[in-house]
Amino acid sequence: MSPAGDVPAQMTAAYITEPGTADAIRVGPLPTPRPAADQVLVRTEALVVNHVDTFVRSGAYRTALPSPFVIGRDLVGTVVQVGSTATGFAVGDRVWCNSLGHGGRQGSFAQYAAVPAERLYRLPDGVDAESAAVVLHTAATAHLGLFREAGLRLGETIIVGGAAGGVGSCVVQLAAAAGARVIATARPDDADWCRGCGAAEVVDYRDPELFARLAELAPDGADVYWDNAGVHDLEHAVPLLARRGRIIAMAGMSATPTLPVGQLYVRDASIRGFAISNAGVDDLAAAAKVVNHGLKSGILKARIADRLPLAQAADAHRRQEAGPHGRILVVP
Amino acid sequence: MSPAGDVPAQMTAAYITEPGTADAIRVGPLPTPRPAADQVLVRTEALVVNHVDTFVRSGAYRTALPSPFVIGRDLVGTVVQVGSTATGFAVGDRVWCNSLGHGGRQGSFAQYAAVPAERLYRLPDGVDAESAAVVLHTAATAHLGLFREAGLRLGETIIVGGAAGGVGSCVVQLAAAAGARVIATARPDDADWCRGCGAAEVVDYRDPELFARLAELAPDGADVYWDNAGVHDLEHAVPLLARRGRIIAMAGMSATPTLPVGQLYVRDASIRGFAISNAGVDDLAAAAKVVNHGLKSGILKARIADRLPLAQAADAHRRQEAGPHGRILVVP
Repeated sequence: MSPAGDVPAQMTAAYITEPGTADAIRVGPLPTPRPAADQVLVRTEALVVNHVDTFVRSGAYRTALPSPFVIGRDLVGTVVQVGSTATGFAVGDRVWCNSLGHGGRQGSFAQYAAVPAERLYRLPDGVDAESAAVVLHTAATAHLGLFREAGLRLGETIIVGGAAGGVGSCVVQLAAAAGARVIATARPDDADWCRGCGAAEVVDYRDPELFARLAELAPDGADVYWDNAGVHDLEHAVPLLARRGRIIAMAGMSATPTLPVGQLYVRDASIRGFAISNAGVDDLAAAAKVVNHGLKSGILKARIADRLPLAQAADAHRRQEAGPHGRILVVP
Repeated sequence: MSPAGDVPAQMTAAYITEPGTADAIRVGPLPTPRPAADQVLVRTEALVVNHVDTFVRSGAYRTALPSPFVIGRDLVGTVVQVGSTATGFAVGDRVWCNSLGHGGRQGSFAQYAAVPAERLYRLPDGVDAESAAVVLHTAATAHLGLFREAGLRLGETIIVGGAAGGVGSCVVQLAAAAGARVIATARPDDADWCRGCGAAEVVDYRDPELFARLAELAPDGADVYWDNAGVHDLEHAVPLLARRGRIIAMAGMSATPTLPVGQLYVRDASIRGFAISNAGVDDLAAAAKVVNHGLKSGILKARIADRLPLAQAADAHRRQEAGPHGRILVVP
């Protein structure tokens, strides 16, 4: 292991000892982790709350957790120690991770985190920590859905529901950058944001003629349909699909829509579900390349609804659960 | 064009002039078709009724039809004329086709049919016309679903609903031959047939504990779930899936089951619909290679419920609509 430098024995962390509401989150001292041979110790600079973090904290998403469990999945920071077999990183490197805090791994909401080297990526030069932190999880989700699952191609048409949200914005940004025509649904006061993300058309999702409008705007059918709001009105969505159209499902845990099976199969169409929590290190690394491209090029950007200190981690979770208009950044 | 030999100017055909019930089918003389440059004229030897033929005839499946429209999709026969640009075939070759009678093409239920060379395949030596005819459409459907859509692999587990039917039997035969473990659902008196097709397990589909039984038999989850009966009980089927499981949908035109979206996406699972009528000539040719392998090797076989002369084509459709216990063969 490289020299520990001035790493203190204890750090401030936000953690839980049992799943529960946001009230279960404690902020206080925990031992600073010592990185295993294949890990890298990172001093955090910017953290963010994701929907899934609230599900892990509440227990709604069951996953192996150590106790006490440091909450949080994403971080941006600086390498302070490198394990003996962890290659590719050196003290002082600026880095990020978006897969802590589930599957038995400790989370990121602390001053330091020990990150498996295979889950750590270099932050591109010139990208600031906060701008990166707020898209790490959402952009990787967008990448997995658009490219691994839907196989989105240049010239295709995609309908993005809930396009102004965290994942939705990244779906619009990456799809437009990949040469797809994006038809977004959002609130009218989010229309300009969606257009700035690359949407060619924005439709008010409360329009009583929503699906007729979408059909007009996609006269040859939609190649991909991605509802980030988790509503999944499949009776109206499936008939909008082109031959070999793909519906992406990754939100709406308790949704139980009616599926018009015949409408699906006469189109050779499919519904492809995925959860980023299932992604392996190879898929995450592939997504990370695209996230870094999006950060360097300026394609990926997010609105920051609030910026809170780590001491207010419980408030950050409450803000996330209230449905913020942008991302909740946490500063350690 | 090669010499016409003894091809008569008129032939007997089963045709409709308007969509309707089986009563709309007429059997009588029509001009023998003259093959276009890229077509091959085939003297038919064995024909078969498929479910989809009844939908084309009734108008339930909308597709471009000439008038009068010769019904029927599949044929086995012998080449009697070869168009000037149709390569790969010679007079006397024994051949088959499974994509006539839709998309503007005349059908197969006649003494002669002009078949685009790109839709015609050689019948393997030693395979009799009737044994081939009864699996052409069902086995090609099974191939498209198992391999193009589901990507079935050696060692996977597949649950096949309605496994004793026409398509279901071919799904079991091809899946087992490809090294998958097949769990079939069928009537008890079809259990031996299903085992003969290669099913490792057969469960009575009327068992009130059906899904609990299937879960016991697939403790690691099903990689593929294919309901040929078109019932699509997705609330019970989706929870049976393994990570990255695939549900195939190609039957049950009017089914509107409830889809448990969260159960789908936490498994990275998908529902993949397809209709063989949408398949292009490349996909059909790929399926034809496997059909011929299955015919030569004896993997593919079907039960023949009835054997009727072409003059009784209307009866053949009525028998098909009544749900026969096997395939309805028609002899020109």
